[in-house]
Amino acid sequence: MIGRLAIVGVGLLGGSVAKAARAQGLAQEIVGIGRDAGRLDAALQDGTLDRATVTIADGVRDADLIVLAAPVGVIERHLLEVWPVAPATTVITDVGSTKAAIVAAAQRLATTRPLAFVGSHPMAGSEKSGYGVARADLFRGATVIVTPTDASEPGAVKTVTAFWESLGVGRVVTLDPQTHDRTVAAISHLPHLVARALVDAVERFDPGAFDVAARGFKDTTRIAAGDVDVWEEIFLGNRDAVIRAAAAAQSALADLARLVETGDRDGLRAALSRIKARRDRLS
Amino acid sequence: MIGRLAIVGVGLLGGSVAKAARAQGLAQEIVGIGRDAGRLDAALQDGTLDRATVTIADGVRDADLIVLAAPVGVIERHLLEVWPVAPATTVITDVGSTKAAIVAAAQRLATTRPLAFVGSHPMAGSEKSGYGVARADLFRGATVIVTPTDASEPGAVKTVTAFWESLGVGRVVTLDPQTHDRTVAAISHLPHLVARALVDAVERFDPGAFDVAARGFKDTTRIAAGDVDVWEEIFLGNRDAVIRAAAAAQSALADLARLVETGDRDGLRAALSRIKARRDRLS
Repeated sequence: MIGRLAIVGVGLLGGSVAKAARAQGLAQEIVGIGRDAGRLDAALQDGTLDRATVTIADGVRDADLIVLAAPVGVIERHLLEVWPVAPATTVITDVGSTKAAIVAAAQRLATTRPLAFVGSHPMAGSEKSGYGVARADLFRGATVIVTPTDASEPGAVKTVTAFWESLGVGRVVTLDPQTHDRTVAAISHLPHLVARALVDAVERFDPGAFDVAARGFKDTTRIAAGDVDVWEEIFLGNRDAVIRAAAAAQSALADLARLVETGDRDGLRAALSRIKARRDRLS
Repeated sequence: MIGRLAIVGVGLLGGSVAKAARAQGLAQEIVGIGRDAGRLDAALQDGTLDRATVTIADGVRDADLIVLAAPVGVIERHLLEVWPVAPATTVITDVGSTKAAIVAAAQRLATTRPLAFVGSHPMAGSEKSGYGVARADLFRGATVIVTPTDASEPGAVKTVTAFWESLGVGRVVTLDPQTHDRTVAAISHLPHLVARALVDAVERFDPGAFDVAARGFKDTTRIAAGDVDVWEEIFLGNRDAVIRAAAAAQSALADLARLVETGDRDGLRAALSRIKARRDRLS
């Protein structure tokens, strides 16, 4: 049970954290901090937030746990704003999709004032954004990656892990920030880039074909409709790993295309079988 | 109302045609033709088929409509077997994912004996295969592409179109066979190739990342688990268009990767916005 939970950024992710915490009765008080008082109103009206403010210093005062839930490009700035005004005993986490830069920023701040920060990345979301699509069950069954370092306080790691577990997530996995960034480049950022390339390829090759798009195409490209601001920040924020993952995808696609082009039936069959077996191992 | 409907190949697609025809009361008699009598038993037992046989000549005798529903690589061979033994008044269609080669084969056969063939491609399916996953509602809401040529008998085109409409599909679209093959290369075959390249890229770049795969990755790669036999035939059967579509995807991915690599924020944002707008126009 948390006394005061402060959430900076009450959109899809922050709003879902608030709703899940409310549904589970996890906090005595839930405070939402946003840029726009009007937009916070919905979360006050429906009882998700106890209090809303546009001032970070006001919102995080006396918070036991602070969750930074703005888009990933803004989290570092919010760390700078939160750090001097948060209580000494607070634990801070975030929901950003890249971790190395954010964790490094928190470690630099910790040299000026010792505060406990542990990065988090709940692997759940939507191609839609905003509090309107926040859901108490967004994280149900999801994997959350928590990214402590050697410098992290064990008690804070435990607090953040227990927080996600209490929200009803599927499991909490621990990775160091660099491993996290490489892992999500492969399994999350790359699919988001490839799905966009696929939409663009149809536009270039045969735009009339969109008229007969069926479920296969729609499922494969659903994530190409993700928020532009969010994904611009993610791709650029995890640039090195995304570029290397994209190079792997270019090679893989070129290799498959070559098997088709040369009519190498045995080679194509072997590749399709190997890839199907790999995909079948995922539920 | 059809007198006798003969379906050659009672798997996912043929079985679903049979089940839908049965559910809609479309035919007086439904005959299933397959390689393996044991496998046809399930469709007899559950009342989908009135009769089952492993002999094409026996199965298509007196058929008013013949649907060739074997994997696409086998359909041309079945055309050769069906042609000499089908009644002169029959209408023949198929469910193959590529059309130019099949339609050309039927046109060659029509010079030896005038029979009415009109190609079809119902844009519905599953990454699973076999009669066990056939469903009466597989085609509900689906687009079916019918591919007549200048040589097609108008009455046969009408019969085939009305047949699909009666099965409860979403709509029937007419394309010439070459346009069909280019269109489905873009909107169906390319996504199936790209989804496989994506699975392979993760395997090459960071196989440990599969452990934290979330809904985005699973949706984007669901179709990579498609049947190896089916997709080997499709990729090779529509080779030229698939290769050109794959080249467009390689360029599109390279262009996005370059925007990320050079940190071209404005260019990346413009591309993401354009692609999102395009994807948002699909339901």
